[in-house]
Amino acid sequence: MTQRLSPGATVGILGGGQLGRMMAIAAAAYGLKTHIYAPDPESPAFEVAGRHTLAAYDDEAALVAFAAAVDVVTYEFENVPADTVHLLSRHVPLFPDDKALAITQDRLTEKTFVAGLGIPTAPFNDVAEVADLEAALAAFGRPAILKTRRFGYDGKGQVKIGPGDDAAAALAAIGHVPAILEGFVPFTREISVVAARDREGNFAAYDVCENEHRNHILDVTRVPSAIPAKLADEAIAATRRIAEALGYVGVIAVEMFVLEGDADAPDGRIIVNEIAPRVHNSGHWTIEGAVTSQFAQHIRAVCGWPLGSTRRTGRVEMRNLIGEDVDRWQEIAGDPELHLHLYGKGSARPGRKMGHVTRVVPE
Amino acid sequence: MTQRLSPGATVGILGGGQLGRMMAIAAAAYGLKTHIYAPDPESPAFEVAGRHTLAAYDDEAALVAFAAAVDVVTYEFENVPADTVHLLSRHVPLFPDDKALAITQDRLTEKTFVAGLGIPTAPFNDVAEVADLEAALAAFGRPAILKTRRFGYDGKGQVKIGPGDDAAAALAAIGHVPAILEGFVPFTREISVVAARDREGNFAAYDVCENEHRNHILDVTRVPSAIPAKLADEAIAATRRIAEALGYVGVIAVEMFVLEGDADAPDGRIIVNEIAPRVHNSGHWTIEGAVTSQFAQHIRAVCGWPLGSTRRTGRVEMRNLIGEDVDRWQEIAGDPELHLHLYGKGSARPGRKMGHVTRVVPE
Repeated sequence: MTQRLSPGATVGILGGGQLGRMMAIAAAAYGLKTHIYAPDPESPAFEVAGRHTLAAYDDEAALVAFAAAVDVVTYEFENVPADTVHLLSRHVPLFPDDKALAITQDRLTEKTFVAGLGIPTAPFNDVAEVADLEAALAAFGRPAILKTRRFGYDGKGQVKIGPGDDAAAALAAIGHVPAILEGFVPFTREISVVAARDREGNFAAYDVCENEHRNHILDVTRVPSAIPAKLADEAIAATRRIAEALGYVGVIAVEMFVLEGDADAPDGRIIVNEIAPRVHNSGHWTIEGAVTSQFAQHIRAVCGWPLGSTRRTGRVEMRNLIGEDVDRWQEIAGDPELHLHLYGKGSARPGRKMGHVTRVVPE
Repeated sequence: MTQRLSPGATVGILGGGQLGRMMAIAAAAYGLKTHIYAPDPESPAFEVAGRHTLAAYDDEAALVAFAAAVDVVTYEFENVPADTVHLLSRHVPLFPDDKALAITQDRLTEKTFVAGLGIPTAPFNDVAEVADLEAALAAFGRPAILKTRRFGYDGKGQVKIGPGDDAAAALAAIGHVPAILEGFVPFTREISVVAARDREGNFAAYDVCENEHRNHILDVTRVPSAIPAKLADEAIAATRRIAEALGYVGVIAVEMFVLEGDADAPDGRIIVNEIAPRVHNSGHWTIEGAVTSQFAQHIRAVCGWPLGSTRRTGRVEMRNLIGEDVDRWQEIAGDPELHLHLYGKGSARPGRKMGHVTRVVPE
């Protein structure tokens, strides 16, 4: 029997950005307290949480005190150091667990895991040395993408290798750290599945999201996706297989590419690009566009509550406000049908996610 | 030109209960900071606000410091002492303003104001002494309701005077404070209009709410109301007239009774019972049931932003969780279509509003 946290309990959240902030707001609606742990004094999530700890992720004394002050721990980002997770796990339940983190922190481990489930990915190979890279380039052809195994996000830690590019220079460009080479995949669409699995193994997915990126950063998400229903079902089934294989608890997001159809698969094919063991930018539309937001859903799952409905309430478009896009807030606030979300961040640096805006059109 | 507060500005909120809490959550979505001022260390709103002041409403030094720390002040309850309002108003914009508060804090002033706008109310008369009460009883007949002029809510500060009851005893029962007698009105329904007026005078109402009370406390709100469209229009028009006459800024709620139809008014008639110069329990359904929640709408108005859409997103039922009703939270959380809201209050005393639950059924 799952231990269900009661209202009044405290959810600990590692990370103080917009995802932690929106999780804390969702927890408050359920009468749960939140305690944010983050190293940045300007963390936007501190503003909406009853308690916070300002400390580094490797501050053992602060972590032990944090674990003692909360009833469960979750996180807003997948690069939580393994030592942090292990230390916390000895003192307090942590979801999603260390297995989900260990697999998704490393692109090689992640892709190997996905491929091992029989789910297609782009061709990939481990790259430790220039010789590995040259062999993989020979096998996959060019262009191909060299990515660091760890700590990549929003296009950081990756470099495209075209016909004339030098392999050694590419490896140097990413700092000569452990990497993988991914073969280039000519996709027609980018989609994601945001879903949740509760502590008893129940699974619920939102409708497939169709995503557009700009400068490697999510720009727009539209739901429903225009892909055929059969592909959407496959995308959700793949996500479920991944969540079940991980014994996952919480919200998970799986980014995928849709490939052109061919004789064997006239509707096209899906390949998995990346797993995010957390709430995801492409799920922000669920705040107004679904019965249960991804943030509320995640809180439910990690607290041992049953899942809420993922039913969509209309056709949805979510647009990120990146950097100086946020200067448009007055225009957005002036459209009575738009839902403006701002994250309370100070300076609108280029590429920084400052907020988002959602429109839900009744169907 | 209205001064529009920018994201990053701080909204000061007097009162730390569930209304302040839900306002603070709404403000956070717009990137606004909040600062709660309340005298109770257990204030539920403290949990979701970046800053709070724990002080009495007559603590002048604390009020001056609070005014200096915020960019605008609003409140969650109408019984803010007049001296508090005047002190704050000298230092910082305050909405709704002192006029709205002065009129709605006193039942006699309020009813006189409403009647002066040509809007029907129950018959009422000022009661200072037993002689006034006996004269009014003779005029209105029995039963009639004796109410304190000030500080009444949820049925507190009122007593019904039936055929055999003694007038002097009734006046003693409410503490012999300044009072009004209201003639008994045989109503068929209780409704409310929740609406907003922005700083430029634009007005937007939500659909009329139909309310059921239990032990004088709101139990259920359903929207839309089953009343004829003509009556609904009249109810909204009366609310607009009230808001305009007050030069009101923010969300306002007007509670009304619907009387049986007669030859002159076959659809029935509406009379105004009470004005709340604030967000209102009968508007909690707007969090999921309308494009813009009443809390977001109030924040928009007091910050000088334009109003959001009040469009309803489905048929709605909102049920309060009073006292030990809150023990049903697991059952409610287990229904995936229900929106559970808990206010983070410690003890579930009888009559205490602990949370609410909303169902939105697509139309």
